[in-house]
Amino acid sequence: MTIKAFVFDAYGTLYDVQSVAGVTDAAFPGHGDYITQVWRQKQLEYTWLRSLMGQYQDFWAMTRDSLAYTLKTLGLEATPELFERLADAYNNLKPYPDARAALEALAGYDRAILSNGSPAMLAMLVRNSGFEDLMKAVLSVDGKKIFKPDPRSYEQVEQKLGVTRDEVVFVSSNGFDVAGAKAFGFKVARIERVSPAALREELNAAGVIGPKTMFKALRMQAENLGHEADWTIGSLSELKGLAG
Amino acid sequence: MTIKAFVFDAYGTLYDVQSVAGVTDAAFPGHGDYITQVWRQKQLEYTWLRSLMGQYQDFWAMTRDSLAYTLKTLGLEATPELFERLADAYNNLKPYPDARAALEALAGYDRAILSNGSPAMLAMLVRNSGFEDLMKAVLSVDGKKIFKPDPRSYEQVEQKLGVTRDEVVFVSSNGFDVAGAKAFGFKVARIERVSPAALREELNAAGVIGPKTMFKALRMQAENLGHEADWTIGSLSELKGLAG
Repeated sequence: MTIKAFVFDAYGTLYDVQSVAGVTDAAFPGHGDYITQVWRQKQLEYTWLRSLMGQYQDFWAMTRDSLAYTLKTLGLEATPELFERLADAYNNLKPYPDARAALEALAGYDRAILSNGSPAMLAMLVRNSGFEDLMKAVLSVDGKKIFKPDPRSYEQVEQKLGVTRDEVVFVSSNGFDVAGAKAFGFKVARIERVSPAALREELNAAGVIGPKTMFKALRMQAENLGHEADWTIGSLSELKGLAG
Repeated sequence: MTIKAFVFDAYGTLYDVQSVAGVTDAAFPGHGDYITQVWRQKQLEYTWLRSLMGQYQDFWAMTRDSLAYTLKTLGLEATPELFERLADAYNNLKPYPDARAALEALAGYDRAILSNGSPAMLAMLVRNSGFEDLMKAVLSVDGKKIFKPDPRSYEQVEQKLGVTRDEVVFVSSNGFDVAGAKAFGFKVARIERVSPAALREELNAAGVIGPKTMFKALRMQAENLGHEADWTIGSLSELKGLAG
């Protein structure tokens, strides 16, 4: 197997979606964790549901619609200015600590992002994190108007990078994305941000299982969708070793 | 508007998915609530994700795959016999207390179910609850091999009941199903099992927001998907009044 490219998911893989918690908790003290988790869960659900309904709108719309849903469940109202500031937190996500060094170590390969994010969101994310020079391409599913894990959402990679799917290692922490990318035909490395043992311990230690633990249980484990990753890694720094 | 048929969602609308909690908690004391909520959430996610991936399997497979996922997060192992007993809880869901009388009151109209459930699951559910004589048709999305809210999942109703979509009141508690049915062209009545005020109160009263409250927040409120119900009702008994 010849590996020519490493293609990364953005949200949850290179960038930590939990890093919006500072903004959500500052805006609504005591509600930050709940808002952070429900917002992300609904943001994803809306990508799946609108894709199924054949009523695509871009990820910025999904980010805003899911935020509005979340605040409504709490009966909270945000001024237009505050709402924009909250939504904009998704354009300023912090990269995971292992992201930059791992990308730099893969300098001999094509490196790219393929994300649900809209082109404008991804441009801000990559610029704000200083990853611009590390990427050959930043691809958005918006080019196909369909969200992951629909196979069409993965199609641009081959054409844009000039590689075949079996020459690509696709990297994601999101179980649905791992399954979709693997079903599409990429080699897939799953970055395991929460190990099964750590989750078990957290679930069993909790008196009441709270929103963040629930989020880890729902979103940060390998899915049972019939397609397993080729590799499961604990840090992005392990990617270099996969290329042999 | 002439209403000729009332078509019901099954899981969460006529039948209470929370009624598996007795079985899950008896099997794994102290874990019943967590298992009940994560199982249902993943069961739905897997219908959406497999539909998007173009890799349909029926709802019985989704029910089992999501149960296996859920138990794995806890590090629990079920014997094959126990696993079957747990999965079978979905064939013995309790009807909501308002279901039978409401169906009986609509005797002058065609009454039917259109559900994600497999034909075998729905047959057991309807038989076990004694609703057989109240239904003109029990329709499964399995006839189209695609899950809700894909528009194709709603197509059978017109042909099987001999009505047009604007003559149908579709009834569901599931926000994604309300949106899908409305986008398809049915009249839609949303049965609100948890009011926004009750959810707000529960969210604000909780020291830690637990799995069941999280489930209500994620699954039992109107979705922000661009399609609202024509009516929101607090009890199925209100359906008769809608027909005028």
